Amino acid sequence: MNMLKVGLLGAGRIGNVHAKAISAHSGSRLVAVSDVNAEAAGKLAAQYGAEARSNDAIIADKSVEAVLIATSTNTHSDLIEAATKAGKAVLCEKPVDLSLARAQACLKAAGATGRPVMIGFNRRFDPNFAALKAAADRGEIGKLELLSITSFDPAPPPVSYVKVSGGLFRDMMIHDFDMACWIMGSTPDQVTAIGSSIVDPEIGAAGDVDTAVVTLSYADGRIAVIKNSRRAVYGYDQRVELLGSEGLLAVGNVLESTVSKATAAGVVSAKPELFFLERYMRAYSAEWASFVEAVGKGTAVPVTLEDGVNALAVAEAATRSAKSRSTVAIAGVIS
Amino acid sequence: MNMLKVGLLGAGRIGNVHAKAISAHSGSRLVAVSDVNAEAAGKLAAQYGAEARSNDAIIADKSVEAVLIATSTNTHSDLIEAATKAGKAVLCEKPVDLSLARAQACLKAAGATGRPVMIGFNRRFDPNFAALKAAADRGEIGKLELLSITSFDPAPPPVSYVKVSGGLFRDMMIHDFDMACWIMGSTPDQVTAIGSSIVDPEIGAAGDVDTAVVTLSYADGRIAVIKNSRRAVYGYDQRVELLGSEGLLAVGNVLESTVSKATAAGVVSAKPELFFLERYMRAYSAEWASFVEAVGKGTAVPVTLEDGVNALAVAEAATRSAKSRSTVAIAGVIS
Amino acid sequence: MNMLKVGLLGAGRIGNVHAKAISAHSGSRLVAVSDVNAEAAGKLAAQYGAEARSNDAIIADKSVEAVLIATSTNTHSDLIEAATKAGKAVLCEKPVDLSLARAQACLKAAGATGRPVMIGFNRRFDPNFAALKAAADRGEIGKLELLSITSFDPAPPPVSYVKVSGGLFRDMMIHDFDMACWIMGSTPDQVTAIGSSIVDPEIGAAGDVDTAVVTLSYADGRIAVIKNSRRAVYGYDQRVELLGSEGLLAVGNVLESTVSKATAAGVVSAKPELFFLERYMRAYSAEWASFVEAVGKGTAVPVTLEDGVNALAVAEAATRSAKSRSTVAIAGVIS
Amino acid sequence: MNMLKVGLLGAGRIGNVHAKAISAHSGSRLVAVSDVNAEAAGKLAAQYGAEARSNDAIIADKSVEAVLIATSTNTHSDLIEAATKAGKAVLCEKPVDLSLARAQACLKAAGATGRPVMIGFNRRFDPNFAALKAAADRGEIGKLELLSITSFDPAPPPVSYVKVSGGLFRDMMIHDFDMACWIMGSTPDQVTAIGSSIVDPEIGAAGDVDTAVVTLSYADGRIAVIKNSRRAVYGYDQRVELLGSEGLLAVGNVLESTVSKATAAGVVSAKPELFFLERYMRAYSAEWASFVEAVGKGTAVPVTLEDGVNALAVAEAATRSAKSRSTVAIAGVIS
Repeated sequence: MNMLKVGLLGAGRIGNVHAKAISAHSGSRLVAVSDVNAEAAGKLAAQYGAEARSNDAIIADKSVEAVLIATSTNTHSDLIEAATKAGKAVLCEKPVDLSLARAQACLKAAGATGRPVMIGFNRRFDPNFAALKAAADRGEIGKLELLSITSFDPAPPPVSYVKVSGGLFRDMMIHDFDMACWIMGSTPDQVTAIGSSIVDPEIGAAGDVDTAVVTLSYADGRIAVIKNSRRAVYGYDQRVELLGSEGLLAVGNVLESTVSKATAAGVVSAKPELFFLERYMRAYSAEWASFVEAVGKGTAVPVTLEDGVNALAVAEAATRSAKSRSTVAIAGVIS
Repeated sequence: MNMLKVGLLGAGRIGNVHAKAISAHSGSRLVAVSDVNAEAAGKLAAQYGAEARSNDAIIADKSVEAVLIATSTNTHSDLIEAATKAGKAVLCEKPVDLSLARAQACLKAAGATGRPVMIGFNRRFDPNFAALKAAADRGEIGKLELLSITSFDPAPPPVSYVKVSGGLFRDMMIHDFDMACWIMGSTPDQVTAIGSSIVDPEIGAAGDVDTAVVTLSYADGRIAVIKNSRRAVYGYDQRVELLGSEGLLAVGNVLESTVSKATAAGVVSAKPELFFLERYMRAYSAEWASFVEAVGKGTAVPVTLEDGVNALAVAEAATRSAKSRSTVAIAGVIS
Repeated sequence: MNMLKVGLLGAGRIGNVHAKAISAHSGSRLVAVSDVNAEAAGKLAAQYGAEARSNDAIIADKSVEAVLIATSTNTHSDLIEAATKAGKAVLCEKPVDLSLARAQACLKAAGATGRPVMIGFNRRFDPNFAALKAAADRGEIGKLELLSITSFDPAPPPVSYVKVSGGLFRDMMIHDFDMACWIMGSTPDQVTAIGSSIVDPEIGAAGDVDTAVVTLSYADGRIAVIKNSRRAVYGYDQRVELLGSEGLLAVGNVLESTVSKATAAGVVSAKPELFFLERYMRAYSAEWASFVEAVGKGTAVPVTLEDGVNALAVAEAATRSAKSRSTVAIAGVIS
Repeated sequence: MNMLKVGLLGAGRIGNVHAKAISAHSGSRLVAVSDVNAEAAGKLAAQYGAEARSNDAIIADKSVEAVLIATSTNTHSDLIEAATKAGKAVLCEKPVDLSLARAQACLKAAGATGRPVMIGFNRRFDPNFAALKAAADRGEIGKLELLSITSFDPAPPPVSYVKVSGGLFRDMMIHDFDMACWIMGSTPDQVTAIGSSIVDPEIGAAGDVDTAVVTLSYADGRIAVIKNSRRAVYGYDQRVELLGSEGLLAVGNVLESTVSKATAAGVVSAKPELFFLERYMRAYSAEWASFVEAVGKGTAVPVTLEDGVNALAVAEAATRSAKSRSTVAIAGVIS
């Protein structure tokens, strides 16, 4: 098997996760790491026997076959364009961009190069969600009717982060928008978003919400509803339910252990795994493996740049809906 | 203990449930039964040693202290008014009326008599929901933030029933509107309703929906979301989740048994109890007991006619919202 | 339907349970109650409109068609014999007797009268255990191999009771011995019992055990294991698992509610229902209904006096095994 | 951190598991592999950049600091003695030997060298069992009283394997004997074993059992009961329950997924993970890490050769008990 030589752009928390997955895969090798924080890049590169270099140097290096973009969101579109222009295969973290127009332009430019671009919607690779999707696709619950996604973070991010995040719909719920598009097999037509900053008024003062319920309507009558909260003190709450004409498929949380304790006070069992690094560790490995396989075989990547643009189109419409307190049409979808 | 003498108006399916609860209670006695179908009234009366009479005769009989109204919805307001005017205590099935204006007028007229009127929102008396409410009131999950109600019927009613039902929001989801008002401790300000007739197009042709997601917004930032479907083939799905600043309270379904079977094909466990007669049988008894107790002691009934009007106000607003595809203010609430 | 006229012998805790079941059944009427404590008999009789009388008077009364024996164990055999001799149908609480020889003699005498005698092994009528039994009988897990019964009481009885109880195997585990015989469809050949008085040394000083594990061996290689403890502080723990060649059937506990609470401290759910009055209330009703039906139709009662003798035979062997610390053969079984 | 240089003796299924754990650990390196099947040794060595050599050559090589013994059981004692004599640290798969006398002699010889010897009771390193043990040690359920272990394999091994395995008690249940000694904190005094070959008569013809229930008695009144079956068609069933004076700790199975499906036929959820490679993969990594740490720091290994001898002493007594159908004292325990 050929060894895919990979450059990693971004050595932050998620960059570290990807570095591990790249190194652990028998078909890929981490050759270079960049970061705006040179020390972070150096440390991560050293850990995996790679070189610390600049974004430009990595992209210019013809021996680097693929880049994984894990930099801050505002650089994603530029880096996707530069890397594909330089002939690299690209796996880019979500979201593609905070601007739908910029993301669409990026899609056009990157698409013209013919290079594969995959977006890092990691949840699709969680084995539980993948099993639900597979069962639904096999028709095990008949015709799909109503999808419900619960997605609560354990604790809100700092307000400084909220201010540059693009807002809950683009930053957090975009995962769930992609999940809905993926599970339902198409992009919805209309979105109705209700938000509130009940967890932390500072988040409201920064113009964002921390608790939201969004309803997605499909032209054929199917409905999806997504609940987000920035705070579930008991852990990372990630569940899906899908009602069909012949039944209900559900994915429950992954718990910290299978231990329970019954005492006079009640029966106590374990909490959900704390956060995405715990819950989705296997998903990150599976995501990377699917990218390496698609690049190696020249087949289509399983999550495309179009998927990234569409999720962003839903997020942008949701942001508008929450502001206008009305149902709005979702514009800019690539079909 | 004094024996409360009770007249039952309506000998249909729900009338039968109430007749049993009235008779089983050591503080009440069923003395008379009426129905538009004289045979049904006669049969039910005979079963419990009561007399079959007309609505008017029961209401005119001074020895009857209380009436339970289980007739068709369009007669509720008139019967509440007549019975209270005749000095009876009243327990009336939900909804008060299909018209909010008529319900408000009924409240005015009945209120003037000073007689107790209780509305039959039976779910408040389910021991599981009551335990969730009590835990929330004790502050066990801190400040309330996001309420989610799942309420699916096992199978849709006949289209003939749908046509006279007042629509899903007034007929079915009104239970959940009352649950939301009760659990959250107040009536929401705004409602956003999304509906679809994906289960049965005939229901759509009759001007109604069979699948709906409604979001309720409170002035203080709290949110409630309700999901209804007319069809869950696996049984009556009745669940509640309540997220607060310090945790999540959840009520799961009551299952048909605690038996499970593990084979090479998977692990099979029991379904939720089939429908409301099974799931809420204990709730009907507890509801009746609380009515008898309030009437006997002269204390306030636990579910008031105001509660019935408020749930209807939310249902009416939801109906408007679904039609206009916009968030609407809830009007006509009694505070 | 003919009304079965019933005399209740014994007005203690379990007598009260039966009085309620007899009265609630549409085919039976409680006409007389006796007790060594005349006040208790009087109070219970008054509650259900029956007469307080002596055992002898009830048995001598030709209008009484059936008696339910809920007196102390040492009177069971005599009362079964007297009542059947007087032509009554009998439902007698477990155990038949503390002496296997006496129980066998009772079987002989009562059997000669041809009157139906049913033993009150109430657990057979628990809907969960009944569903497990039915699934096993339908062959859903293939050939049966290994049965496991967990049966823990919430708290130990007073030592004064332990002293006259006949010991844990005859008093408490006899329920599980009957369950094993019933589920497996036959009486085992050998028994190995290990006991300990680790919960309360006073129980040990009284010559009994409070914690025990008993293994039952069948000639065909099947095995059953029963665990008993007199103390499970979290409630009445009543579970069964049955392993077969094609799978595992399991009955879990019935919980106090379906409420759960997730907080930073863990996820807390409800405890098992506290004790037998809660867990087996439906079973007592079903037990009585099956007796009334068998007597009314003249068909065989579902739990025979032979079943009672066999369970006692296993208990007696278990008592011997625990003392001798060896596997012993089960003697005196009626096949 | 110093790199521990490791020789692996045995390149079979379990050798492959260990090779992976050795290589993945940042503090150890696999330098040599041996096997009676030279091709298997060569293939595994090549996969991890190690050399294929003979047992003797590896043991004679002074640069090899530790050996992991994963050969057939009949070679364990000799290899432990040779390796410790040559100054190696040793991690040896269970059981130490099929003969208790030989294991005791091995303990004496290896003990004289002062070299660390750890026995591979992998289940102690399962995070769920470890959490139960930690909670019990913290006193969360008070005084321990009754331990129950369920341990069922998905399918029986070939009869050819059974014949050389030493029998179910030494080969399979030895894991559970060690679990009991570990969780209870001491070795029991007496054992009572009941076995049967109901799964496969061929296993019985080979002089072994495939289904067994063993009860362990402690001098202080505590009891442990272990259930083994060679066949649970629904997967590898590995559960523990521990009853104490203040509650019950339980470890449930690890399931293949968190997906459930509710249909008209029931609610189906995932099966337990299939077998030990799936269920205990994390345990093997943790086991190896604890060995590397103990060797590196010169601290005591967490599972000693004494532990291995004691588990074998229980297995030998169980074998005698099953044959004699009586409770027997456990002899040869090292305290």
